[in-house]
Amino acid sequence: MDFSALRINADRLRKDFEELAGIGATLGGGVSRLALSNEDLEARAWFANRLDEAGLIVRDDDAGNLSGVLMCGPDDARVLILGSHLDTVPNAGLYDGSIGVLAALECVRTIKECGIHLPLHLEVINFTDEEGCWHSLFGSKALTGMLKPAALAVSEDGDIGAFRAALFRAGIRPADVHKAARDMNKIAGYLELHIEQGCKLDKQGLPVGIVSAIVGRTTHQLTFYGEAGHSGTTENENRRDALYGASLFINRAHQMIREKQPDGVFNCGNIIVKPGSFNIIPQSAALIIETRHPDEQTLSAMESSLIRLAHECAQQHKLTVGIRRIVHMPAASMAAEAVEAIESACEQVKAAQCMQLVSYSGHDAQILSQFTRTGMILVPSVSGISHHPKEFTNWDDIVTGANVLLHAALNMAAAS
Amino acid sequence: MDFSALRINADRLRKDFEELAGIGATLGGGVSRLALSNEDLEARAWFANRLDEAGLIVRDDDAGNLSGVLMCGPDDARVLILGSHLDTVPNAGLYDGSIGVLAALECVRTIKECGIHLPLHLEVINFTDEEGCWHSLFGSKALTGMLKPAALAVSEDGDIGAFRAALFRAGIRPADVHKAARDMNKIAGYLELHIEQGCKLDKQGLPVGIVSAIVGRTTHQLTFYGEAGHSGTTENENRRDALYGASLFINRAHQMIREKQPDGVFNCGNIIVKPGSFNIIPQSAALIIETRHPDEQTLSAMESSLIRLAHECAQQHKLTVGIRRIVHMPAASMAAEAVEAIESACEQVKAAQCMQLVSYSGHDAQILSQFTRTGMILVPSVSGISHHPKEFTNWDDIVTGANVLLHAALNMAAAS
Repeated sequence: MDFSALRINADRLRKDFEELAGIGATLGGGVSRLALSNEDLEARAWFANRLDEAGLIVRDDDAGNLSGVLMCGPDDARVLILGSHLDTVPNAGLYDGSIGVLAALECVRTIKECGIHLPLHLEVINFTDEEGCWHSLFGSKALTGMLKPAALAVSEDGDIGAFRAALFRAGIRPADVHKAARDMNKIAGYLELHIEQGCKLDKQGLPVGIVSAIVGRTTHQLTFYGEAGHSGTTENENRRDALYGASLFINRAHQMIREKQPDGVFNCGNIIVKPGSFNIIPQSAALIIETRHPDEQTLSAMESSLIRLAHECAQQHKLTVGIRRIVHMPAASMAAEAVEAIESACEQVKAAQCMQLVSYSGHDAQILSQFTRTGMILVPSVSGISHHPKEFTNWDDIVTGANVLLHAALNMAAAS
Repeated sequence: MDFSALRINADRLRKDFEELAGIGATLGGGVSRLALSNEDLEARAWFANRLDEAGLIVRDDDAGNLSGVLMCGPDDARVLILGSHLDTVPNAGLYDGSIGVLAALECVRTIKECGIHLPLHLEVINFTDEEGCWHSLFGSKALTGMLKPAALAVSEDGDIGAFRAALFRAGIRPADVHKAARDMNKIAGYLELHIEQGCKLDKQGLPVGIVSAIVGRTTHQLTFYGEAGHSGTTENENRRDALYGASLFINRAHQMIREKQPDGVFNCGNIIVKPGSFNIIPQSAALIIETRHPDEQTLSAMESSLIRLAHECAQQHKLTVGIRRIVHMPAASMAAEAVEAIESACEQVKAAQCMQLVSYSGHDAQILSQFTRTGMILVPSVSGISHHPKEFTNWDDIVTGANVLLHAALNMAAAS
């Protein structure tokens, strides 16, 4: 059968989008639905009703991932998952995550209405806590079996009491979260529609991006240690100023990455100085730094050169430096089959001129890609603004993206 | 009469020193007597008893300055004040402030015991909150009439409720503090013995320093404003990273002052970054910077060049910068008569080889010097350590310093 003229119902998608935007709405036109908050739970209840109304089989797994299954394949068929997340950062925009979940629902509703039978079942999913209010990419990690029970156990060194309480409150038992792990052999693939959160598509005037890879990311805490002293009376040769050394590092790190790694990103998002008094030489300065690169080996080389630089800057100011790696999220390549399925979909949906690009933000697709054939479709963020109430995507682009998702899913199913 | 052989009672001074060190003692060998705290109040009660025992007239003024007067001059004589402060920073050393108050008491006791009559009365004083736990140099500002009632009134923008409560608790009525102002015509001068808090004397192996001037000091809050954005997806040309600009400023400011103002001091003691998340480009970075120089005009020029530099660094990173001067404590010269009186005293006390130097820390003498003939005697801080439990001064140097204070007071009196 030729489904190439099939299109989603844009009005129905719009209605869902507007209803969802009202849940956790903030005064400035943004939305706050932090994972497991009242607003997030309200959005999930609303979404469960939409799944139910659509005639899908509603599932709520042990990690709080909420999904609706359309049994449109043979009984023993594998399932193709479409989705994203409904949780947000504080005072977020309306598009990040939401459009991915709602477009997935709309695609499956469209397929169901047409009574299409496929070689696969379809599942629309909302992953828990993608944004990392508690634990970044929590739901997708649990579904792929990456979350071990120890990660959520009460422990002496970790402070996860509040997270455990929030899970219990949402009806999720920490000790059972690992049971959300699926048999990945029964999953045929994963497709996610998302806003770009950068400005490449907007600059090029293209409605669709096809993700080739998602950057790898590492986060480190670097703490420079010097010596507190009277700011007025300590002579220059005796000053061991932790903030002076840390500032040198921040400057040189930015310069180094910009000069030597044009595809890499460096961010220093915070610094805590102690004792922090105007008249005391800073004794310690603790930085959180983040490094991103689409190539895993280059990412590792960036890390090494930053660590070397930190030691150099410390030495120059007679400081010591403590370095702790907090997060390592490996770079991920999207599956060739998924990229092809999306490319074909862009041809089928006439309006969908597209380009391939690297995603510089993390997504559930990054986790899924390690286990199943995964693809991502991006739609433009106007001026690249994201994680902000001013985040905006033109409605026409969302509709185009949703139609590409529809046909990419049909193409994946046909090729399976 | 020739008093040149007169010496203080070192054992009695030692006993006082050891008793006082027990009030607010901390586990690491330091002491915490924050102004108006229980420990500070206990130290004041102990000191009032010592003044009383010594047969002095005990005074407790409306700003909590506690003093003992020896009426050793004609009825209508002016008064020469000797003193310092008993309050400390948190977990301080045992010497800062304390030795100045105790040596002053010991000098006056010595003069009283000898039945010496002078052309002046003498007064030993403990000033309230020199360290600025609540209001830097509070007691000396009140005594010289610099504190206006409005400074302690309940106001809408200031948050001084806790300070007012602490004052009431110590028996000080905020509305009456201005009544502590003295008729400065009745004050003949002020002498203060203090530890150096730097390492010039220790390096030179000299027991006594004569302060020629006290540095002026300004404190500014500089806030660099950029734009928050996704750390991964925002392109370099769109990044307006407040912390990157602030780091550049910190580096260049240190370099500039070290190169161009060898007698000046620059300190950046704290920086607060918002929103402060590892994956968000810093939107704002608020710095507290401090500038010191012994010459008031040069201090002002340093301020101007730092402000210019802040604007340059902001411009380079497409930021704006807000600048607010919080404190300006003018540079102070010590009175020639007081410097001469101390120099002569050093000759009278044979052990007291001395040098003149600039004090890079603030003192009550800085306030008094604006109103009366003021002199300061410094004794060495081993390795320049101060505001730390490891602060240390050799006992022999303290005794030498106390004897110099004794003779400086006698010289001041003789010359009046």
